[in-house]
Amino acid sequence: MSSTYGENLKLSIFGQSHGSAIGMTLNGIPAGLTVDEKKLAAFLARRAPGQNGWSTPRKETDAPEFLSGIVDGYTCGAPIAAIIRNTNTRSGDYDNLKDCPRPGHADYTAQIKYGGFQDAAGGGHFSGRLTAPLCIAGGMCKQWLEQLGIQISAHIASIGDVSDDLFDPVNPDMQGVGPVFPVLDPKAGLQMQGLIEKVKREGDSIGGTVECCITGLPAGLGEPMFGGMESRIAAIVYGVPAVKGVEFGAGMQVARMRGSENNDPFTVVNGQIQTETNHCGGILGGITNGMPLIFRCAVKPTPSIAKLQQSVKLSENVITTLQVQGRHDPCIVPRAVPVIEAAAAIAIYDTILGGNNHGAK
Amino acid sequence: MSSTYGENLKLSIFGQSHGSAIGMTLNGIPAGLTVDEKKLAAFLARRAPGQNGWSTPRKETDAPEFLSGIVDGYTCGAPIAAIIRNTNTRSGDYDNLKDCPRPGHADYTAQIKYGGFQDAAGGGHFSGRLTAPLCIAGGMCKQWLEQLGIQISAHIASIGDVSDDLFDPVNPDMQGVGPVFPVLDPKAGLQMQGLIEKVKREGDSIGGTVECCITGLPAGLGEPMFGGMESRIAAIVYGVPAVKGVEFGAGMQVARMRGSENNDPFTVVNGQIQTETNHCGGILGGITNGMPLIFRCAVKPTPSIAKLQQSVKLSENVITTLQVQGRHDPCIVPRAVPVIEAAAAIAIYDTILGGNNHGAK
Amino acid sequence: MSSTYGENLKLSIFGQSHGSAIGMTLNGIPAGLTVDEKKLAAFLARRAPGQNGWSTPRKETDAPEFLSGIVDGYTCGAPIAAIIRNTNTRSGDYDNLKDCPRPGHADYTAQIKYGGFQDAAGGGHFSGRLTAPLCIAGGMCKQWLEQLGIQISAHIASIGDVSDDLFDPVNPDMQGVGPVFPVLDPKAGLQMQGLIEKVKREGDSIGGTVECCITGLPAGLGEPMFGGMESRIAAIVYGVPAVKGVEFGAGMQVARMRGSENNDPFTVVNGQIQTETNHCGGILGGITNGMPLIFRCAVKPTPSIAKLQQSVKLSENVITTLQVQGRHDPCIVPRAVPVIEAAAAIAIYDTILGGNNHGAK
Amino acid sequence: MSSTYGENLKLSIFGQSHGSAIGMTLNGIPAGLTVDEKKLAAFLARRAPGQNGWSTPRKETDAPEFLSGIVDGYTCGAPIAAIIRNTNTRSGDYDNLKDCPRPGHADYTAQIKYGGFQDAAGGGHFSGRLTAPLCIAGGMCKQWLEQLGIQISAHIASIGDVSDDLFDPVNPDMQGVGPVFPVLDPKAGLQMQGLIEKVKREGDSIGGTVECCITGLPAGLGEPMFGGMESRIAAIVYGVPAVKGVEFGAGMQVARMRGSENNDPFTVVNGQIQTETNHCGGILGGITNGMPLIFRCAVKPTPSIAKLQQSVKLSENVITTLQVQGRHDPCIVPRAVPVIEAAAAIAIYDTILGGNNHGAK
Repeated sequence: MSSTYGENLKLSIFGQSHGSAIGMTLNGIPAGLTVDEKKLAAFLARRAPGQNGWSTPRKETDAPEFLSGIVDGYTCGAPIAAIIRNTNTRSGDYDNLKDCPRPGHADYTAQIKYGGFQDAAGGGHFSGRLTAPLCIAGGMCKQWLEQLGIQISAHIASIGDVSDDLFDPVNPDMQGVGPVFPVLDPKAGLQMQGLIEKVKREGDSIGGTVECCITGLPAGLGEPMFGGMESRIAAIVYGVPAVKGVEFGAGMQVARMRGSENNDPFTVVNGQIQTETNHCGGILGGITNGMPLIFRCAVKPTPSIAKLQQSVKLSENVITTLQVQGRHDPCIVPRAVPVIEAAAAIAIYDTILGGNNHGAK
Repeated sequence: MSSTYGENLKLSIFGQSHGSAIGMTLNGIPAGLTVDEKKLAAFLARRAPGQNGWSTPRKETDAPEFLSGIVDGYTCGAPIAAIIRNTNTRSGDYDNLKDCPRPGHADYTAQIKYGGFQDAAGGGHFSGRLTAPLCIAGGMCKQWLEQLGIQISAHIASIGDVSDDLFDPVNPDMQGVGPVFPVLDPKAGLQMQGLIEKVKREGDSIGGTVECCITGLPAGLGEPMFGGMESRIAAIVYGVPAVKGVEFGAGMQVARMRGSENNDPFTVVNGQIQTETNHCGGILGGITNGMPLIFRCAVKPTPSIAKLQQSVKLSENVITTLQVQGRHDPCIVPRAVPVIEAAAAIAIYDTILGGNNHGAK
Repeated sequence: MSSTYGENLKLSIFGQSHGSAIGMTLNGIPAGLTVDEKKLAAFLARRAPGQNGWSTPRKETDAPEFLSGIVDGYTCGAPIAAIIRNTNTRSGDYDNLKDCPRPGHADYTAQIKYGGFQDAAGGGHFSGRLTAPLCIAGGMCKQWLEQLGIQISAHIASIGDVSDDLFDPVNPDMQGVGPVFPVLDPKAGLQMQGLIEKVKREGDSIGGTVECCITGLPAGLGEPMFGGMESRIAAIVYGVPAVKGVEFGAGMQVARMRGSENNDPFTVVNGQIQTETNHCGGILGGITNGMPLIFRCAVKPTPSIAKLQQSVKLSENVITTLQVQGRHDPCIVPRAVPVIEAAAAIAIYDTILGGNNHGAK
Repeated sequence: MSSTYGENLKLSIFGQSHGSAIGMTLNGIPAGLTVDEKKLAAFLARRAPGQNGWSTPRKETDAPEFLSGIVDGYTCGAPIAAIIRNTNTRSGDYDNLKDCPRPGHADYTAQIKYGGFQDAAGGGHFSGRLTAPLCIAGGMCKQWLEQLGIQISAHIASIGDVSDDLFDPVNPDMQGVGPVFPVLDPKAGLQMQGLIEKVKREGDSIGGTVECCITGLPAGLGEPMFGGMESRIAAIVYGVPAVKGVEFGAGMQVARMRGSENNDPFTVVNGQIQTETNHCGGILGGITNGMPLIFRCAVKPTPSIAKLQQSVKLSENVITTLQVQGRHDPCIVPRAVPVIEAAAAIAIYDTILGGNNHGAK
């Protein structure tokens, strides 16, 4: 179902890029949980644009207004609703987007699906701006998970051909990942920023990968088959615009591995069952094994580029050219990092609300 | 929710590897659709083991018995239920699997989750055998999609380092893909089979990738955000045991691409809107654009290998070694091909049942 | 799941009586449908309090603000969100409601469920005020159903022992039902109003029944068993505060009937299949038969009464007495009529979105 | 969705009256729960026909065969599947039911909905026989609830004008209710049996009401609005064929009551919060208050009667007469009692699996 997620919690995201507000409702959250609004604001700031050279200079004041569900800093058991007013509301003529769709955007598919009734301004409901309410929901889930000892942290794993290779899937240490340009290896970070600058000067954009790591999870979380952690996480992460690949543990690389190499040997560390490697990304049979849960996703290059592109004029059924106006992120990956954390937090918290151990009590 | 899938249809899969039967129920299917049982049997045969050198010599007679929902070859609107009797039922002592979990299997996570009450025999509900009822459901959906002009076809894209490179994502031609060892390039197929033989002799196993292609889809299928085609397909494909990565179109490779390269230019071919490349895999904003829908998934090497492996004795909390008994597929990828087609067919048919064009009528 | 409804559309209602706003999101609505905001305002006005002697003199300005999903009067395919600001926001001390629960209200059950974290002010999320966003969603669904030739209309069937007996379940004519005090028989209406005045003078309240009738429905709507129209309608109508009984057609009276009396004989009228009576309320096997769909629900007397009542002091576990302050509706039934229409409209439109005929095409 | 139920557990019921088998799958049940198959058989026997004068002499051997989910008498965490073979399978010509629908049955609505492809034999999927798998699922849930100290018990509250009036909603004592003709007052029971005999001799049938009572429930169970206990219970009870009314506590009678009469005064009994009356049926704001949960449902007279009835010939669009063949229950109410218990058990257990107290821990 469009723009809703969750089995135990129910997230519903609404709004269009240039409508009067965007927002979210989140049902099924226990009463009595705290929400630290300052911490949430800091989390949302990581996603906000306009902060530096590699993101769009557009300013968004994404301070959420909570309409319900929170009283005196505590959840009250009622559905939580929050909105962000759009200051940059709809004006001008966006009909050209309906007739001449931008390559790589949802303009064409929305036009076909909604028969021209879609809100085309700024991408409407398909805009990356809708990740802001996702981050409101996810930022709260992240706080509630932290209160259970579960940490979610992501970094830029690569941009173009530059990789941040210091990640250890068995004993991940995410302390060094900064909020502004989140990498483990500062040198790699500088190279990435240089690459983004170069691509920007060329009027182009570039993609990358985000790697996300969840520690502190109990073993036994998830359900068999379609209720497995991979299904739950992939279903929400693929809801983030621009994601075209999601992989767990060794991911696509398992295709090149032998069983003797890919199987993670069990071991005992300080009396705890662990595995010596973590090719499975902390998930066996869809269920967590107590090791760090690790996944990566590929974020495509921003489709809005300054370069001239080939498109079609739908009204005349002929080929034409198009130049996307405005200033856009040459690389969306740094801002995608908190969004991926938010998506993961929602999926994990949803699963935890269902109970993580179905064995007899 | 464990072992159920679908928004418009409702699939429920049940059974354990060594229980009395495995099966599925499928609700929400329109009345009056035909089911060609011979064609379904041929489809199931593609998944069955014991057919040749590269799969386990175990024999399964996976002829489904339909209990309800089909009368005289037509769906009758009532839920469809079908079962496959297990001939190889539970006997002997599987308690060792509960105490000494096999690496790469769900033995350990099931033990933690179900507190020792799980059916450990042959992997229980986590067994790859549960893909047989998935293929019953998917095989029917595939037939119903064909009646709508939609074709689903997959091939082995790689095994280890050997790739089947002849796939064209813009104008895919899957005619040459055979049922026994499904590749486009026979030479690559022979190389893959050689590699599997070699790995088998070494008492090891090897992984690979399956590439799936869906043609004939209308544009406008799918919903925004979490209702997008990527989310729907990934959620079911990750329910197939051994899948650790799912990617669409250019997939993980978008991370290395420029926007000017990744954006698919629109064009007009015979009066139809198309794109010149298909890096988006036929999906923009989660919604089909009328081009072939393309995805790949990585299938890990069979965890059951003859080689000695390190595990733990849970009752004593000590490290031990373990050798998996029995004969197992050295490479599960060829048999996974129809399973991936089945999963895709279910996801697509589920979406179609919801209506593919939400525009005003 | 709390405060969400729908299988094909997804309604989510949020807000607390004295929070900053109440509202709703509605997902899954086709694009290109018109929303007549004036007509919607008139519909909401039927539910609003403060209009006359028999309802509370509190004033609510329940003009909804649409945040998303509607552009230039047309649905755009994106989720619809609308809010109503609360002018009467939280202030003062409501902790007494947490310690000394009002009989007939949810104060006690909320206290137990939410451990004291619930928003007790004015009933919080359990307030009848939450039927306003239900009426926003239902008022729109009602318009969309009208565009399909489906009319939903309800009347007060009884208040106390006074009945409005002119309803004909076979050929219902709801033209004469006025918006202010919705009855078919004006004499019964005057008697009811007299009874309400009397009860009010006594510091008491009184219950009643609402009868709802849906005409223009196609035969074949609904699904077997738990997907039947009775299940779908009862599930939403029981979500309206104060409803304690829901019955279809002859309803509870079928318990006193013979089969020969209750079975509705089929007949042919102007070439159309009809039934001569309508004891089944237009539903057989959960599925509409093309006759008017008819249900009634019992609305309990307003629990807030001026009379002294017995309650308990939870902190001390002792019996005490309590007098509910403020001015309250002595009878909520007249205002419940549009709410029941709204609930029915949502259930019917949800079912229609799923497709009403699953036979072969 | 047709024939599925549940938010935390997932029940799927399948089969047609004269198909090869009927059955159910039940997902989401914790591992390690015991299932007493003898007790389950005794429960199913209460529903079985052919036991005495007032039910049909047809014999059904409804011994369920468990296919999965239970190992050595314990649930194993995998989906539970069970089937009952139909001995009375499809034979002969049922096309007359498609052309000449029986009044009060789903023949006509199924014909319209499924376009003639429905399995008409014996009512197909709409047959009361489908309540047997409902009783398998419900009988197990009843056992699991008993293990938590929750008792579900129902009795015949009325048949025609004869009532069983000994029920006390505040302190219900269901000990005296026998398994064969479940009433509290043996005299009323004899009168009811006499009435059924009389009706049977007349070639007619008669309806009645079933009253169900659930004790031992914790306070705080249920969710606001559409997640309330009334919505959850009504949704499944209306899935039982022949139910046309469902009411809670004082039910439809609240319409005749004053607030001062209907409000249940809180009191303290042995240090526990209780209410002095139980007009609310143990539910306030949709949430249990710790008092017995009480509901009644009206069961219509069996539509299959020996008397000549008026119907239509659909192929010719003309009125005709019809006589239902075979021997049928003159009153289905006694056999409906365990079915209603089963439905209630499923609804309650589903809610409990979701967690009954959402307050902070």
